Parts: sequence; C-alpha cells; structure tokens
Amino acid sequence: MAKRKPTFVVIGGVAAGMSAASQIKRRDQRAHVMVFERGHEISYGACGMPYNIADPAREMDDLVVLTPEQARTERGIDLHLDHEVNRLDLAGHVLMVRDNAGKTERHQEFEALVIATGARATRLPLPGFDLPGVTVLRDLADGRQLKALLRSQPRRAAIIGAGYIGMEMAHVLRERGLEVVVIEKMPQILPGWHADSVSVVEDALARNRVEVHTGASVVEAQAGTDGKVAAVVTDAGRHQADLVLVATGVRPNVTLAAAAGLRIGASGAIWVNQYQQTSDPTVWAAGDCSESYHRVLRKNTWIPLGTTANKQGRIAGANALGANTRFAGIVGTAGFQVFDLEVARSGLTLDKAREEGFEPVAVTIRQRSRALAYPGGGPVQVTLIADGPSGLLLGGEVVGSEGAALRVNILATALAAHMTVADLQNLDLVYAPPFAPVWDPVLVAANQLAKTVGRTS
Amino acid sequence: MAKRKPTFVVIGGVAAGMSAASQIKRRDQRAHVMVFERGHEISYGACGMPYNIADPAREMDDLVVLTPEQARTERGIDLHLDHEVNRLDLAGHVLMVRDNAGKTERHQEFEALVIATGARATRLPLPGFDLPGVTVLRDLADGRQLKALLRSQPRRAAIIGAGYIGMEMAHVLRERGLEVVVIEKMPQILPGWHADSVSVVEDALARNRVEVHTGASVVEAQAGTDGKVAAVVTDAGRHQADLVLVATGVRPNVTLAAAAGLRIGASGAIWVNQYQQTSDPTVWAAGDCSESYHRVLRKNTWIPLGTTANKQGRIAGANALGANTRFAGIVGTAGFQVFDLEVARSGLTLDKAREEGFEPVAVTIRQRSRALAYPGGGPVQVTLIADGPSGLLLGGEVVGSEGAALRVNILATALAAHMTVADLQNLDLVYAPPFAPVWDPVLVAANQLAKTVGRTS
Repeated sequence: MAKRKPTFVVIGGVAAGMSAASQIKRRDQRAHVMVFERGHEISYGACGMPYNIADPAREMDDLVVLTPEQARTERGIDLHLDHEVNRLDLAGHVLMVRDNAGKTERHQEFEALVIATGARATRLPLPGFDLPGVTVLRDLADGRQLKALLRSQPRRAAIIGAGYIGMEMAHVLRERGLEVVVIEKMPQILPGWHADSVSVVEDALARNRVEVHTGASVVEAQAGTDGKVAAVVTDAGRHQADLVLVATGVRPNVTLAAAAGLRIGASGAIWVNQYQQTSDPTVWAAGDCSESYHRVLRKNTWIPLGTTANKQGRIAGANALGANTRFAGIVGTAGFQVFDLEVARSGLTLDKAREEGFEPVAVTIRQRSRALAYPGGGPVQVTLIADGPSGLLLGGEVVGSEGAALRVNILATALAAHMTVADLQNLDLVYAPPFAPVWDPVLVAANQLAKTVGRTS
Repeated sequence: MAKRKPTFVVIGGVAAGMSAASQIKRRDQRAHVMVFERGHEISYGACGMPYNIADPAREMDDLVVLTPEQARTERGIDLHLDHEVNRLDLAGHVLMVRDNAGKTERHQEFEALVIATGARATRLPLPGFDLPGVTVLRDLADGRQLKALLRSQPRRAAIIGAGYIGMEMAHVLRERGLEVVVIEKMPQILPGWHADSVSVVEDALARNRVEVHTGASVVEAQAGTDGKVAAVVTDAGRHQADLVLVATGVRPNVTLAAAAGLRIGASGAIWVNQYQQTSDPTVWAAGDCSESYHRVLRKNTWIPLGTTANKQGRIAGANALGANTRFAGIVGTAGFQVFDLEVARSGLTLDKAREEGFEPVAVTIRQRSRALAYPGGGPVQVTLIADGPSGLLLGGEVVGSEGAALRVNILATALAAHMTVADLQNLDLVYAPPFAPVWDPVLVAANQLAKTVGRTS
C-alpha cells in the first residue's frame, strides 16, 4: 500500500491562517493543505476597514487580498468556507469539522495542524446592546453593516472605547458628517499611552468637535420609538445616539485549543514558543489567537495585530512542514491616524515597564518635523521611555502631523537591537531640510533623556 | 602668582566650531573660549541654502542659527570674526592669528585647541570660470551672490556636477523659472548611487525638463559680449548658460593642520580617533575638515555633513575640557529632495563595499508607500545591499514620493546595530494603512534579499 500523502490542516483563513497555508504550498507544491474557515471570506485586511468606511463609494471587498477562488486555483489550497472545527483530538491526530452550509459533520485526520482562529470583538453584555444600530467592527460583515447603517443617515454616533479603532472611527464618522461622542471607562483615552501623547490627541478630538467622556461606565443602550437604538446611558449621563459602535477591544478565540488541552498563556491566548509551536509538538498557532514573544520583555505577551499575524503565519506554516524558523518577536509597534495626527508607539508603556520591574524614566519633547529654514511641516512630539539605572530604551510614542508614524520605526529598530538611550543619541539619522531638522526629534528626545538615565555618554 | 585661567581656542565658527565652543561653555561657564572665524558669519545651516534660494522673498540670514552677538552675550564666547589663523605651533601651544579687518597679527596661547576649519567648494581651474555669473554654493555669501544673480533674471543655468547640491539646485532653478542643463563628468548622475535609484531620479529630471549630460568633461566657460558668462563648453558640446553653478564637491581645509604636523588621513582630511582627538593629544578636530569613524567600515572615512559636524563639535568640545566622550561614528546617511522625489541613502555603496573586500549583493523592490486599500501615496523604491556570505546589511537607498527619507532611518539604525538581512526581516515596523502597507517596503526588500544571502532564516 502506497504511503498516504500527509495532510496539513489550518484552522482559520484570514491573515495568519492564509499566510501559513500559502507558506506550506510555496515550500512544497505537492503538500495537501486544507483550510477550514468558519466564515465566508478569507484573507482580508481588517485594519483597512475604517479608511474604507470613510469613503461611501468604496466596496468593502476592496480589502480582500486573496479570493477563495484564487486561493484554490492559484495557490492550490484545499479551502473549505463555512466550516467550523468543533473538536480537536490531539492524541488521535483527528478533528471534527462541521459544514455549516450542508449541516454535516465529519472527521478529518491531520499530520500537522496550524491554529489561526483569531480574536473576536468583545461585546457588552448589557441591556440594549443587541438593538438594531449597535455594531462592532471586526470582520468585513461588520464593516458592511456599518456602511449600511451609514446609508440610513444617522445623525449622532456613540463610540464605546477610546482605543485605536475608537479613535480611527471617531475621525471617520466625523468625516461622514455625524456628531460623535466617545465613551471610555478608563480615566483617559488611549489607555496605557503616555499623558503627553493623550493630551495631543485630546486636542485634535476637541478641535474636531468630538465629545469625549472618560471614566464613564456604560449601563445600557436604549431604543427609540422605531425600535432602533436611540441612546447610550452611562453612570454619568445619557447620550443620544442612533449609531453605536462598540470598540472595547478583542479577545483571543481559544475555546477549541483549550478544550483540546493545549496550554493557554497568562495572557489568555494560546501559548507558543518562538517557533509558533504550541504545547503539543504537532500543533502550531499564529496570529490573534496566539501569544507573541516580546523582544523587550523577553517573554510572551498578547498584542494582536495584522502584521504580526502575517509573520507568525508564515513561520507556523514553514515549521509545520519541518523547517526550524524562529520568530524573532515583536516590540509592540502600532500606529493609527486620527484627523490630522499620526499617532504611533513601540515598546513598553510606562505602566507596563513598572509592572515588569523596570525603573522607567520618560521624557517628552516637541520639535518641528522639518528644518526651521524649511517651509511647511509641523510639530512632532516624541516621548521616550527608558530604564533609569541601565539606560536601556524601553519604548516610545510619537505624535504629530507628519513623519510621526515612520519615526516610530527608528524606535522599533532600536528596541529590536536592545539599544540604550546613548545608542539612540549616536544614531546617524538623515538630515535634509525638507524631511528633518539637523537634530531629528528622536535625537533631541534621546539627548534630553540621557540627562536622567544611568549609563550614557 | 595666581594661576592663569586656561584658554580654549576653536578655529572656525560654523557648525562644528560653534558646537564645540558652546559645549565647553555649557560644561564650564567660567572657561575662556576663543573662536577665530575667518569669515563674517557663524553658525549657519548651509544645507538650507537651496531651499532658501527657491524663495525670492526670503533672506539668506534666515539660515543663521546663532548671531555673533548671541554667541558673545548669551553663550559667553570670546568670538573673533575676520580672524584667520595662519600658523600653529603645537610644541609651544601657541598660534599666530591675523585680524583681516585691522590687518594686524598676533600670537595667542592655548591650553587646548579645536580645529573646525571646514571644507571649501572645489573650483574648476579652467578658462572662464572666474567670469561674472559663475558661482559655487558653499557659504552664505555664495548664496547671496546666487540670489543676486537670479534677480537679473538669467534664462538658462548650467550646473556642473550631479551630486546632492547639483540635484537640489536643478530643482530650485527650474522652480525659479530657468532652463537647466546639468553636466556630470562621471558616467551617471549621483556617482556611487545604485543604478536603480539613479534611474528614478533621471526620470524626475526628464519629467521636469532638466537637460542632463553625463560623461562630459568641462573644457571652459565662455563670455558673452557683456563680459558675463554665456556658455559652458565640454568635450561633447557647447551649452548656452548665463548662470553657471559649479557643484563639483568639496575638499577639507587642512593646510593649517598639515603644516603644523598633524596627521592627515588617507581621505585627505585630518585624522582623528573616536574622541575627535588628532595625532596631537591637546588638539581636537571636528566637522568637515576631519575624518569620521564609519561604523560599517569600522575605520575612518570622510563624509562631510552638517549633522555629523554638530555631533563631532560637541564631542570635541567636551573632550577638550577633559571629558572622555566617544563618537560612535557615522553610517553614511544622507538625503535630499529633487522635484517630487525624496532621495536618501545610508551605509556603503556597492562600489565601496566591493573596494572594502565585501562580496556585496543587492536587490531593488518597488512598493506603494501606503496600504493598497488606502488612497493616495505613491511608489517607494528600496535598494538594499548586503554582504553575500555573511548576510550583514551594508547599505541601502530609498527613493520615492513620500516616506522615503524617513525609511532610510530604519536602515541607519539597523546599520548602527550591525544587523543582518535576517535581523531586518524580523523588525516589528509600524503598520497602518495611511502610513505603510502590512509589509513595509523595507521588509519586502529584506525578504527578497534574504533569498540570495547566506545566514538568513
């Protein structure tokens, strides 16, 4: 009897899952790669949704990177949409998968498995949050629903949660002509971010007439006479809103993995080593459902982001096929745009740094984005965080009208190299009047911070 | 007899010189710091001149960072303008300085000396290059002269030399309404740059109707009937021009240092160690007259740039005062704008890498500057150069309509950390549709180059 061709199964077909499946096929064209995706769509750029929603003329489908047809014909992936994996038997190397369309269930054996079940938007288990007009923004269906809601010309939106999505959507919904109120239960918008960055973003929100209520806990959503949502009530007041976006974060989808006995990390996501291998050596996990090695913390953390999902997916796929590729890890880089501001960060927040036993010191400077002698440009604010005794760079935030997001990449690169503040001072950054002053804002901040840390020149 | 207060002498008062003098005063307010500057002006941002010339309404004085009055009163520097140091007696710790205004000469003793004599524009020792209408662009006086020439409404400019200044000025002079011809003796514009970058810049020049002649040696400049320059003749043709800008590079001013017996490096600039100390332990040198430690080459080189001058000046000043501050070195970062293009580089060129015994491999990719799903942006081209056998990153060039210059800072940071191509692939760079695609162009280039180098994952 001829040896059966080994089957690779990938659970989940968005960023990490399709990266894993494609990587396996790229490395071994003859490999049999099955992907089970619970939804109807694969491989889309969810991070692009706010910018898509900003433009009524654009189709949500613009965000699809690879269609199911392309995955099948161009990449040779055995793709199953509307298929939900219900049970995982690791000892038996078999899983139970349900075809939601055909309402059938069957067993599927596998030699190696990649779990890429992603994360889901947290929903508020409060009265009224199932009313028409209330939505989250996680997958393309949510995006389409939100665009449909906008076509009915709502007048006033309430956004619950002032994180990245909340900020981006405040901008987008103002652009679409709505009044916007943002409600955040923490004492500040952008929880975790440095007060100096927060203050610049608050100014932008105020300038653009976004109403912000921090430290306010949502109690319920109320319906109007038409049965649709009409208001959000918090412990501090009542806000009229005929559109409500719940943007209170995401949680990793780990039910399947946990039930199968795979180790769940302290973060609540699936534990993996730097090879994206789970506690079972024949199972890999990648993307928003799994932890990531953090290079500054030198341990696992959970920071779900699309770019990380793509990288981890490739690695999980390669290693499922027998490669030995290590994920170098993340440093916690993220950014977004809100009105005329670029807002970006990398590394640890002050709170996180303290929590992890560092003795962080921070400095914030403001500087023009171009040379004084050059017209245009605007202020760029740089906050740097370092460990006081050692001078080790721990993180940074950059906020400004131009060049802010890309300047964070200097910090991301420095963090990957475990640079100190003195190392940062010594960088040979580009100087040309249209792009940067003689002392780039990052260098000015480093020079300033060097005065308060230990081992610097 | 009370001990005389030690005197610090700085020769040269532009970028490095004033940084050194200011650093000494900052560290020791009571120090006696004399600065001898040959010209009338100090501390100006020469790199801003092209952008200043672009705007007829702006004064050249906008580029002055610190006036002589401010240097004296605010910083307490004993500044002597129009003073030229003619001779240096290192054994006797004394120099001979000539007051060009008063036509007097005197001795000045010093305890410690910082040489910051800068560089001068090379001039063409050819017939006609002393005609009215021919200029270089090195100090503010040159800038004023060029602005004055533009007021007489010349119609056609010839720029000799297609380096940074030549490119910036081609742009500026086109903006000011002139026809422009660029003449370069090397076979390509931007000598040393990768052919892929050159090609993008050539396209921009052609789109903006700048005439370019490479591989052409200038023979003479010819006068018109009015006695002013009217044409430039090369071995390949004759080009009408009533304005001629010689932008063929700069040479370090080392006559004084060489005559005093200080070591001159292989580059022709003053040799220094990483403490900016010359071969005489009581003499420091900084800025365009001195060499710089190159972190990729791990040896001295000569790349005169304003940002390096500022850093070295600070270090020379601190060390002249007894500090022990080490200059980490440069990695060869530079950038400029030409028409709608940002053009920037860092590290070694292919030629230089070969010359230094590396076995360089290079790759060029083009990618959009923002996510596909996001409107606007444009192509960014990234060229990466690495050592084939080791995978060590050696350099890179980025050319594009936005975000190109700041992306080079990722490479500058990676080069400072001696990263490999694999290290670059592993960077956690910011992803947000308005700023960057999921795979930043730098990562795409690194992934591509990884296929051809040795030790990569």
